[in-house]
Amino acid sequence: MNYPNKIKKEKQTISHSNRGMNLEYDLDLTNNYYKNNNIALIYKKATPIKVTKIQNVCDNKAIIKEGFFQKKSTTDYNGVYKGYYIDFEAKETKNKTFFPINNIHKHQIEHLQRVIENKGIAFIIIYFVSLNKLFFINGLDIINYIKQNNYTNIKIDWIYKYGILIEQKYKPRIDYIKIIDKILEARWKKY
Amino acid sequence: MNYPNKIKKEKQTISHSNRGMNLEYDLDLTNNYYKNNNIALIYKKATPIKVTKIQNVCDNKAIIKEGFFQKKSTTDYNGVYKGYYIDFEAKETKNKTFFPINNIHKHQIEHLQRVIENKGIAFIIIYFVSLNKLFFINGLDIINYIKQNNYTNIKIDWIYKYGILIEQKYKPRIDYIKIIDKILEARWKKY
Repeated sequence: MNYPNKIKKEKQTISHSNRGMNLEYDLDLTNNYYKNNNIALIYKKATPIKVTKIQNVCDNKAIIKEGFFQKKSTTDYNGVYKGYYIDFEAKETKNKTFFPINNIHKHQIEHLQRVIENKGIAFIIIYFVSLNKLFFINGLDIINYIKQNNYTNIKIDWIYKYGILIEQKYKPRIDYIKIIDKILEARWKKY
Repeated sequence: MNYPNKIKKEKQTISHSNRGMNLEYDLDLTNNYYKNNNIALIYKKATPIKVTKIQNVCDNKAIIKEGFFQKKSTTDYNGVYKGYYIDFEAKETKNKTFFPINNIHKHQIEHLQRVIENKGIAFIIIYFVSLNKLFFINGLDIINYIKQNNYTNIKIDWIYKYGILIEQKYKPRIDYIKIIDKILEARWKKY
């Protein structure tokens, strides 16, 4: 059956929002959309692996025979938007009433702190799977939370108060750049 | 024997400049220096590895039993300086008269192009081992070179004309941020 384009799109949007998201996959789609439309250039960092055994084969090629996944000392994503440095971590939880803060490692928080000290734009995206809600949390807010409350889990009320709800759309799926625009606007107004 | 601090430092500087550099190691030292002195936050990206076999052991830990190094689709280093996005590749050559351009992959050049389109600061550091000379080449200059000359090797005369010589020091070893300062100054003057 041939739907006119507009209806087709609406149908897809609805079906998408019904089924919930796959955070990593949808962020990949979003970042590809940003790249292909010259909006921003954001990459997922490779997982660091400690290689302990290598077998050399022909043509300078090597097969890894033993290796270990290492803990990331930084965050998942970084890149550039309008010349500004962007750095963030994306997390999801099945909890409905709080975000388990041990999902974010101490050295990741330290990394976000350093990004902020170097005037980069640092944040966390949290996806509440059961609520099908996605929040943008400013890096500074999460750091201040930890300073005041130590590493206690973050209640959903706090998330509603300090977080910014990210709209789930068809294209791009997770339009976090829209929120960065507002942050930059506020930055410029200060000067 | 106890030298006064100043003399000690001078001795180290001299011995360092005599022995030449280890590009990757000296860049790591430089980036650590920038980080520890709150000057900039620049990281070496992890090498992407395609993991094809995993063995699960206790405590959610896994050993990689087979994997392959993948070609990097981007560059070696990125990060943030004063809020600006920084992205570069570092290469060395033993040639004295030219830089073999196939040292830089096509998709890395495309990546630098995208960084520039997104107003990031993109460049290449080239170390001529036999000359013990280190050059900063603006990303746009290398892209323009390739547009005009295709992928022919870059003669040292071109490097002297378009590159900026990076001073080798004791701390930090490779002070490329100094050159970025000049680039930013020129950027601001344009407005």
